[in-house]
Amino acid sequence: MIYLDNSATTSPYPEVLESFRKVSESYYGNPSSIHQFGGEAEKLLHKATKQAANLLKVDSSELIFTSGGTESNNLAIKGIALQHQNRGRHIITTQIEHPSVLEACQALESHGFDVTYLSVDAEGKIDMEQLKNEIRDDTILISVMHVNNELGTIQPIKQIADIVIKHPKLFFHVDHVQGLGKISLDFTHPGIHLCSMSSHKIHGLKGTGLLYIQSGTTLSPLLHGGGQQSSTRPGTENLAGIVAMVKAMRLTFEKQKHGYGHLIKLSDIIRNLLQKDDRIMINTPRDGAPHILNISVPKFKPEVVIHALGKKNIFISTKSACSSKHSDESAVLAACGLGMERTHYGLRISLSYQNTEEEVRQFCKEFKEVLDELNEVMR
Amino acid sequence: MIYLDNSATTSPYPEVLESFRKVSESYYGNPSSIHQFGGEAEKLLHKATKQAANLLKVDSSELIFTSGGTESNNLAIKGIALQHQNRGRHIITTQIEHPSVLEACQALESHGFDVTYLSVDAEGKIDMEQLKNEIRDDTILISVMHVNNELGTIQPIKQIADIVIKHPKLFFHVDHVQGLGKISLDFTHPGIHLCSMSSHKIHGLKGTGLLYIQSGTTLSPLLHGGGQQSSTRPGTENLAGIVAMVKAMRLTFEKQKHGYGHLIKLSDIIRNLLQKDDRIMINTPRDGAPHILNISVPKFKPEVVIHALGKKNIFISTKSACSSKHSDESAVLAACGLGMERTHYGLRISLSYQNTEEEVRQFCKEFKEVLDELNEVMR
Repeated sequence: MIYLDNSATTSPYPEVLESFRKVSESYYGNPSSIHQFGGEAEKLLHKATKQAANLLKVDSSELIFTSGGTESNNLAIKGIALQHQNRGRHIITTQIEHPSVLEACQALESHGFDVTYLSVDAEGKIDMEQLKNEIRDDTILISVMHVNNELGTIQPIKQIADIVIKHPKLFFHVDHVQGLGKISLDFTHPGIHLCSMSSHKIHGLKGTGLLYIQSGTTLSPLLHGGGQQSSTRPGTENLAGIVAMVKAMRLTFEKQKHGYGHLIKLSDIIRNLLQKDDRIMINTPRDGAPHILNISVPKFKPEVVIHALGKKNIFISTKSACSSKHSDESAVLAACGLGMERTHYGLRISLSYQNTEEEVRQFCKEFKEVLDELNEVMR
Repeated sequence: MIYLDNSATTSPYPEVLESFRKVSESYYGNPSSIHQFGGEAEKLLHKATKQAANLLKVDSSELIFTSGGTESNNLAIKGIALQHQNRGRHIITTQIEHPSVLEACQALESHGFDVTYLSVDAEGKIDMEQLKNEIRDDTILISVMHVNNELGTIQPIKQIADIVIKHPKLFFHVDHVQGLGKISLDFTHPGIHLCSMSSHKIHGLKGTGLLYIQSGTTLSPLLHGGGQQSSTRPGTENLAGIVAMVKAMRLTFEKQKHGYGHLIKLSDIIRNLLQKDDRIMINTPRDGAPHILNISVPKFKPEVVIHALGKKNIFISTKSACSSKHSDESAVLAACGLGMERTHYGLRISLSYQNTEEEVRQFCKEFKEVLDELNEVMR
């Protein structure tokens, strides 16, 4: 199998699964139980949280574990909106956010909030001048993703954070789900108040996510209950999932340190091989994240291409998994102002540190063969 | 180890962990991905949901997987409240619900909802006449737990459901977290609209729960995003956790079928041995669930007793894990109108089908020895 859909989800590292098993077997006590067996689970929970905090260079008290990226994004956006709505009800985001950000914002609109969706250029980048102009007295939140999940475009998070600190009433949330372990983000910037991460995108397990909440930032919880995680996110902690996520972070950060060049190399190989084929248009900008390459192959229906590749045990995707079953058009590519021949024929190749040169070369070869075969059929 | 804190959490069945591992390794594709590898994950998701539906005798479309009991309770209560608030803003619940129900209701109160908290008698039972009298034209939801988590008291769910069907505007939510696999609940009763369950209380894994939503019942989602689970609970499905939960349900239902008498026998042994000791008062009613036995040992501080037992590798608890780190008094026992000598000195022994006669006899012996030793020290 050549798996090139790593932005949808990744294969768990064997060490991650092993940690999950060990913790589930030996530390199954409830961290809230006051007996010693619960105390051991609680100690492990503190240790894992501390390790995550060290890896992200933040304080343990600034991390909240959730059930995944969708919950982290919803908790950040709705949590800030509900908590601070007396100060203002205006939110700024972009047209190309993940559905869990866009639809959380739309839900808030139906509750009387006003949301500005920033447009993007042909490469998926926001305009910093437009962002500055849209900030109003009643703006309480800006939510912008670090790396776009379909296009790989990197937004100028530091520049936005630099502007945010000039507005003391303003909170800034970063959806870092696709960036984690690939494109570094400085969590210590005072202008970044909230940041969402997901375990299963970095070879961890599904069902665990993380939300960084800068010390001093208050938000309204989505869930109420037993007081766990400072009542910001109650419910019995999924300790095994948490330990597994921290292990996946540690392993992925090591790969990032030593394997980032490898990712760039793979990306370059695919880009160079594919752009020689004049049926293929490359949508991801040159300065995008190296693990995502979005292309369009006009006239070739993406589902058909994907199924033909699937028969060869090669897996790529159309747009994002979370929106793949909806409309035919990529809303992200449409927001970039690209023509129909691109927006309806988009494909995404997404890499992991585990992919090899051999795999991506074989993919490119088989991909062209698939196009040739389909061309025959379509005649 | 003698583990008698099974209402806080349970040890995962080895078969459950093995299923989790297999699914994580071999079916890690995103069920929303349209390629064949995602399709296999999607098929397995449908199969697991269908199995859960068969076990609960409901339709697959009526089941939503969540991150646990806390999320299920919050989604049911806030979801109904927000969706149907135009019809009325009154909710009825009881004084002895789990914190995730009580605090969800309190959160709604701060948003203008009116909540009636039914009182209970000395055995923790609600008064059906009081319930009937509290139903108003603007009542939209009744939320009552099946089995109380601290006391084991079983509420008359069928009787409540029989009343609910006479009020077409009314929804009924049952917190079935402690009942699942122990005290059967007829999900096909038309008066039960919502029902919460949790995996880690039945030897499944933490991080997975279930919410039954009767066909035709609409609720407002807590999370917005990629459209998974009919948009009622979006986010990439934790497929391995879901398969593991369904396996835990199947195994637990088998144990219930063949081992229910065993649970009653264990409960009777403890009850008979402990009630001979006049230092010990038994709070759980005779007709309570057999897996929970709540006792009070006046003058013996619960934490001290628990730690002394813990040194002998025996684990029991004070009240519920989710409220064990707060006040000294059990709010549940206080709501039952019990005196200070009971409410401040409550202990909970909670059983699983895995516990043995030998274990519970040894527990009773060691428990009395601990009281003797502490008595010496306290002189």
